[in-house]
Amino acid sequence: MMSQPNRLSLLEAASALSDGKLTAETLLASCLERISEREGDVGAWMHINADSAKAQASAPAAKTTTGPLSGLPIGIKDLIDTVDMPTGYGSPIYEGHQPAQDAACVATIRNAGGIVLGKTVSTEFAYFQPGKTANPNDLTRTPGGSSSGSAAAVADYHVPAALGTQTAGSIIRPASYCGVVGYKPSYGFLPLTGIRPLAPSMDHLGVMTRTVKDAGFLAAILGRRPELDISNQSGDFVPTIGFCQTPQWDAADATTQSLIEDAATRLGKAGAKVSNFTLPDIFATLASAHGIAMDYEVSFTGLYDVSNHPDQASAKFRERFDAGMNVLTSDYDKALDQAKLSRTALSDAMGDYDILICPSAPGEAPVGLNATGDPVFNRIWTFSGVPCINVPGLSGPNNMPVGLQVIGRFGDDARMLKAADWISRHL
Amino acid sequence: MMSQPNRLSLLEAASALSDGKLTAETLLASCLERISEREGDVGAWMHINADSAKAQASAPAAKTTTGPLSGLPIGIKDLIDTVDMPTGYGSPIYEGHQPAQDAACVATIRNAGGIVLGKTVSTEFAYFQPGKTANPNDLTRTPGGSSSGSAAAVADYHVPAALGTQTAGSIIRPASYCGVVGYKPSYGFLPLTGIRPLAPSMDHLGVMTRTVKDAGFLAAILGRRPELDISNQSGDFVPTIGFCQTPQWDAADATTQSLIEDAATRLGKAGAKVSNFTLPDIFATLASAHGIAMDYEVSFTGLYDVSNHPDQASAKFRERFDAGMNVLTSDYDKALDQAKLSRTALSDAMGDYDILICPSAPGEAPVGLNATGDPVFNRIWTFSGVPCINVPGLSGPNNMPVGLQVIGRFGDDARMLKAADWISRHL
Repeated sequence: MMSQPNRLSLLEAASALSDGKLTAETLLASCLERISEREGDVGAWMHINADSAKAQASAPAAKTTTGPLSGLPIGIKDLIDTVDMPTGYGSPIYEGHQPAQDAACVATIRNAGGIVLGKTVSTEFAYFQPGKTANPNDLTRTPGGSSSGSAAAVADYHVPAALGTQTAGSIIRPASYCGVVGYKPSYGFLPLTGIRPLAPSMDHLGVMTRTVKDAGFLAAILGRRPELDISNQSGDFVPTIGFCQTPQWDAADATTQSLIEDAATRLGKAGAKVSNFTLPDIFATLASAHGIAMDYEVSFTGLYDVSNHPDQASAKFRERFDAGMNVLTSDYDKALDQAKLSRTALSDAMGDYDILICPSAPGEAPVGLNATGDPVFNRIWTFSGVPCINVPGLSGPNNMPVGLQVIGRFGDDARMLKAADWISRHL
Repeated sequence: MMSQPNRLSLLEAASALSDGKLTAETLLASCLERISEREGDVGAWMHINADSAKAQASAPAAKTTTGPLSGLPIGIKDLIDTVDMPTGYGSPIYEGHQPAQDAACVATIRNAGGIVLGKTVSTEFAYFQPGKTANPNDLTRTPGGSSSGSAAAVADYHVPAALGTQTAGSIIRPASYCGVVGYKPSYGFLPLTGIRPLAPSMDHLGVMTRTVKDAGFLAAILGRRPELDISNQSGDFVPTIGFCQTPQWDAADATTQSLIEDAATRLGKAGAKVSNFTLPDIFATLASAHGIAMDYEVSFTGLYDVSNHPDQASAKFRERFDAGMNVLTSDYDKALDQAKLSRTALSDAMGDYDILICPSAPGEAPVGLNATGDPVFNRIWTFSGVPCINVPGLSGPNNMPVGLQVIGRFGDDARMLKAADWISRHL
């Protein structure tokens, strides 16, 4: 019997299951054992349905490959509705809330044979107020947010994959801090039905995994977009890379700046064409436009809760809500226009570049669990709706993960994934 | 005491309440009396919360004007979540389902002092399978769908206003068939949080009222877009009108074609500049592109239900769902691109035209309650995301309402409303 099957990647586990080298029961038992060892420290989960998962793993369907995810345990961010598990959206207002249906992504996972193992910790309504999760690499540090539990659970080998969402930097940042792959596809690529909205015009569903290929494989199933599955890709795709400091470069600490610069040099030596890329002017103020539009939309998505349960909303959430109530609708409309134009402008400006690279976050995960870090390197890409992915592999001065962010043109996710896969092997 | 206050428009009722000529209790009692007389025949409602409405109407808050909707009874389409009333989404799967929160639009109505009187009938998941509602002008005819109950309730003087949603033609068509104003704002103008999604990239929240000014007044509150409230507009806005046959013109029956042509002539005689407008080529295939994209998105929004409760989904819904499962993602992406381009193309092509006019529906409401008519004149505008409104006032050969549809540029809703208001007085 394979030792520590919980450490297999999603595709490795799928292959071992399909070859009969591993059973779904063994894989699940190994994940549950890891969780029981570590959950007290890491706090990645809101709810685990071990009995139901065991029943599914031992059922005949899981023994044969009835679907591409058959027998694979997956974590679901607790912002996402599940018909058989409570869904709290990270808020005490919804503690114990039982949705009447599965989100579309959850239904897809079940239809594909996947085992919905449990619900991972989200910050409050996927905004800033943290949940209980610690960074598995250093329990005194934040895992990032809002997809805190999903990043920690995958990094700490509780599950090979988990779902996350991103409205500002909620996939890329925790992936960077915890040291996993986090993939935010192009806007609209993955279905949001059954996911609590935060700012619908910039909400994205995405995935956390331990390899780039895993991320594409899972996203391909969730979005019925087979081109995202690059696992059977033959040959190397050596990308032409734009090194993009972004208008936020000064927010990165000096070590991170050096790490990313050195990585760019290394990728060049490994064969990629790498040169500096300057973003179109419209990106100069896009991060602040994102903040304005996000706050504005939160003042609608949070309206019922803040109006009816003000004492159960955090001070941080109410502060953003109030800011949103004061945004002029005309400023919101202008911000959305800017986001739309930025998408086309980026595509045009990229020319022969296949992808861009920049930091995923300002640095290592900050010490302390009362904040989740700064999405400063994520806002522009999220608002523009372009695909981005965190590639782990670098380490900061405290031996904590530092992620490299890879960005593609809108809709060009498959190319971005291939590039990120190559980068992950040459970082 | 005013006779039949239930027949007052929303703004008339607001004004009478604010002037002390009417109390909220009297208004509510008059609406409830009308409902008790007519509901057995019309079947506009899934649920009425009379006790709670009476309590609210008699509470001190309703006696003074604490909000712009204070004391005004409003119907909510049963696709929209309410925390104190069951919400069935038009499907037996969700019969008796009790949401854990109010939709953003419902919370807004309550915060503005409005009385949420009850839930109006929706077709199944806002697609084609009809509910129990009959057309109040002729009980043997369909009220249209999917916002069937909202259109019928407003037309039949149960309430002065109701909320509807439109993904193909679900506001404009029932408004046309029932003879009320139905307003679908620009895409994204009104919040969708808490509304069951059908095809999220083309789902719209909108309103049903008996006057154009009422529609703008209510939408202004729902979207925090004060420019939509044209009720205090001084002076006439005489629009420059493009008479637009649309690629669907042949789907209108001969009488309707004549009615719309005669209306255009009449509006010209009343002072408007009217001339023929030809849509940009990209609109030629936009209706079929809409159908493809809508089906595709339904195969995600309906996935849980069809996978887990296939016997409780109608044959019509499953047919569209299956069609959507067979749409190639690349064809879906192309359809969305076409919709985006159509929006800009229309804005450019309109030049000096303020608005366009075309039929709202092929003709009078068809006989029979087992179908809701054809959204053929609605798909292109919905997919393009441009604002449109049904202006009632014409009558067909059976003395049934025939609506004129007024269309504006994207984001230019205020101008469209002013034009529609002028048209409603000169039709």
